[in-house]
Amino acid sequence: MKPSGIITLVTDFGIVDPYLAMMKGVILSINPDAVIVDVSHSIMTGGIAQASGILRETYPFFPKGTVHVAVVDPGVGSDRRLLGVEADGHFFVGPDNGIFWPIIKDYRDASVIQLTENRYFLPHITSTFHGREVFAPVAAHLTIGTDLPLMGIRINNPVEIAIPSPYITDNTLCGEITRIDNFGNLISNITKKELEDFLKYSKPLISIGNMEIKRLHDTYLDVEEGEPLALINSSGLLEIAVNLGRASEYAGINRDEIIGSTVKVSRGG
Amino acid sequence: MKPSGIITLVTDFGIVDPYLAMMKGVILSINPDAVIVDVSHSIMTGGIAQASGILRETYPFFPKGTVHVAVVDPGVGSDRRLLGVEADGHFFVGPDNGIFWPIIKDYRDASVIQLTENRYFLPHITSTFHGREVFAPVAAHLTIGTDLPLMGIRINNPVEIAIPSPYITDNTLCGEITRIDNFGNLISNITKKELEDFLKYSKPLISIGNMEIKRLHDTYLDVEEGEPLALINSSGLLEIAVNLGRASEYAGINRDEIIGSTVKVSRGG
Amino acid sequence: MKPSGIITLVTDFGIVDPYLAMMKGVILSINPDAVIVDVSHSIMTGGIAQASGILRETYPFFPKGTVHVAVVDPGVGSDRRLLGVEADGHFFVGPDNGIFWPIIKDYRDASVIQLTENRYFLPHITSTFHGREVFAPVAAHLTIGTDLPLMGIRINNPVEIAIPSPYITDNTLCGEITRIDNFGNLISNITKKELEDFLKYSKPLISIGNMEIKRLHDTYLDVEEGEPLALINSSGLLEIAVNLGRASEYAGINRDEIIGSTVKVSRGG
Repeated sequence: MKPSGIITLVTDFGIVDPYLAMMKGVILSINPDAVIVDVSHSIMTGGIAQASGILRETYPFFPKGTVHVAVVDPGVGSDRRLLGVEADGHFFVGPDNGIFWPIIKDYRDASVIQLTENRYFLPHITSTFHGREVFAPVAAHLTIGTDLPLMGIRINNPVEIAIPSPYITDNTLCGEITRIDNFGNLISNITKKELEDFLKYSKPLISIGNMEIKRLHDTYLDVEEGEPLALINSSGLLEIAVNLGRASEYAGINRDEIIGSTVKVSRGG
Repeated sequence: MKPSGIITLVTDFGIVDPYLAMMKGVILSINPDAVIVDVSHSIMTGGIAQASGILRETYPFFPKGTVHVAVVDPGVGSDRRLLGVEADGHFFVGPDNGIFWPIIKDYRDASVIQLTENRYFLPHITSTFHGREVFAPVAAHLTIGTDLPLMGIRINNPVEIAIPSPYITDNTLCGEITRIDNFGNLISNITKKELEDFLKYSKPLISIGNMEIKRLHDTYLDVEEGEPLALINSSGLLEIAVNLGRASEYAGINRDEIIGSTVKVSRGG
Repeated sequence: MKPSGIITLVTDFGIVDPYLAMMKGVILSINPDAVIVDVSHSIMTGGIAQASGILRETYPFFPKGTVHVAVVDPGVGSDRRLLGVEADGHFFVGPDNGIFWPIIKDYRDASVIQLTENRYFLPHITSTFHGREVFAPVAAHLTIGTDLPLMGIRINNPVEIAIPSPYITDNTLCGEITRIDNFGNLISNITKKELEDFLKYSKPLISIGNMEIKRLHDTYLDVEEGEPLALINSSGLLEIAVNLGRASEYAGINRDEIIGSTVKVSRGG
């Protein structure tokens, strides 16, 4: 696969510490022409599923041949494996802790390589920062055309994580909230197709916490200021929002219980 | 106009969500050599005037031919228009909600184009993320030399916003605080020229909240630690500060009432 | 020295204001091919020692010939000098307030230049933003090969800052905490070599606040969840951590007293 020269980064590092800059210095030392894009560094500490979801939502907007590095790595220094993955025309580099599982699962021809060839790593490997010493240099080598299979051995048992899927019970489609965005919008794991297949031609009755919404709208402005609404968002997912307000504060659910809370859709006639 | 290859971004997206990275992926897919600079993503939700002010303060420091993208877009998905503007040797791309009005107003030869040619957009346009599907690709096309007028139709009635201007009443020059910066400095809308024209050769008597300042200083260190001062700042605006302190906490005004609060200048002799 | 074309930035500006973007615009106006990397903009206001430490930890990961700009500059507008430094194959540009002293001290052949040649500055110099008007353009000129000595005069008395060093008293090695990272890890100023030289072949007994740790581990996972541990971190420094927890909340020290608090190591047998 022809590299695009672009590397994206998603981590749980925050933006205060110098760790990200160290990784960028390592990348630019190997490929001075690499283009580095920050996806998010505000992943919850150890939030593998959160990082995984954001990555899956974001990578398709980059050119084929882009390298996506994910460093949410609570197992750093243990014997968890180091991975490079080629799937859907993109590269993914990070720890073998399930972070890439949703992508690997979706692409049966995904090639999963355990990174073992330490000539592509920094000379000194610490027990606590493989992002800098393994993932950054491997990513940089991919951008200059090094073949991923040369960097290790193919494996067929990458670590899997549970991916919560919507299910139907008692004539109700149940999903869950996976993300609250900067605007307080509640983003669920129910896709447009799942919703349409369930509803057929019925109207939806959507409920979460103390909010009840009786139809789908196209955009936020379709309801009055302060009114809740539901729509299929720009990622193709069912989203609960409040026009010019924050749905996360209207739902009557404790802030730290919103992620993972249930959204129910029934057929309203 | 020759493009500089640079795109700046100002949004109200915050830095947690992947929306910015999606825009950058779209830009780099069209022009892999584009240089992308973040201006600020901490604009208050829907803060059109705030984004507008920051943009007007910042764009002149970039080379001519730079594309400035502003996505503070509470009207996304409604029939508000999509704009590309050429003014003062720079390009501006974003929603027609007044965000570019202060720049358009200042440059009578500004060219304002309603973006209508969807061959420069992403193929699939959602109702909620025109930053990704319209503004990012249009900006990228501008950096590779596509003529702005080719992308739409010229209009002469862009949406205007009120731009609070200082005024003189009862021998007092009244301005307002438009921004609090990271150091707690209070930045007003009174320009150096307005202040000088008003004062002539008098000394100023400057008041805001419970602070009274009797002269202009050159820099923060000109007064004792913890003392308030007034100066013309690096953007040519009257600024109220406290040496090694935060003026925003000394003024005796509620934090959420400082923006928009009045600063008064009278002639002190 | 051959420039790498890379400029890193460490400031106390935060990421809300447009000041950083102005600096980047100035840099790109002089060298459109410059690659700019943010190190941290979350330095405490006026935190010279903090910025200095982060810079010293980070710069070695960048290619030789990189320009590191530090703008933590409470003395801006006073007569404090403007510096360009060449040391260890890197350039450093910023105010003469001690921020580069730890690096200058370590490299006896460091070349310290007071920047005086204003043809390398912006034409208009304000009293409050030398980062934009002096340091950014000087850094950009360095990336295109301008010789640093041409930009000013060599000096041999740069401002020094105290660098707290570990010391031994009563058979105890005493260091201090210099940084709390995003994971709540407490990073001390005790180096691996200092620790080994002190311990010889004894086991350590490490104490900070109410935590007592009786050995060194290799990585976080070596202890049970919620248990404290000590290790030599990826920067070669003694670090106190809690597996899957935040040491900063376990130590029994007030949050705002942790930086600078003492960590003691004695020989445990």
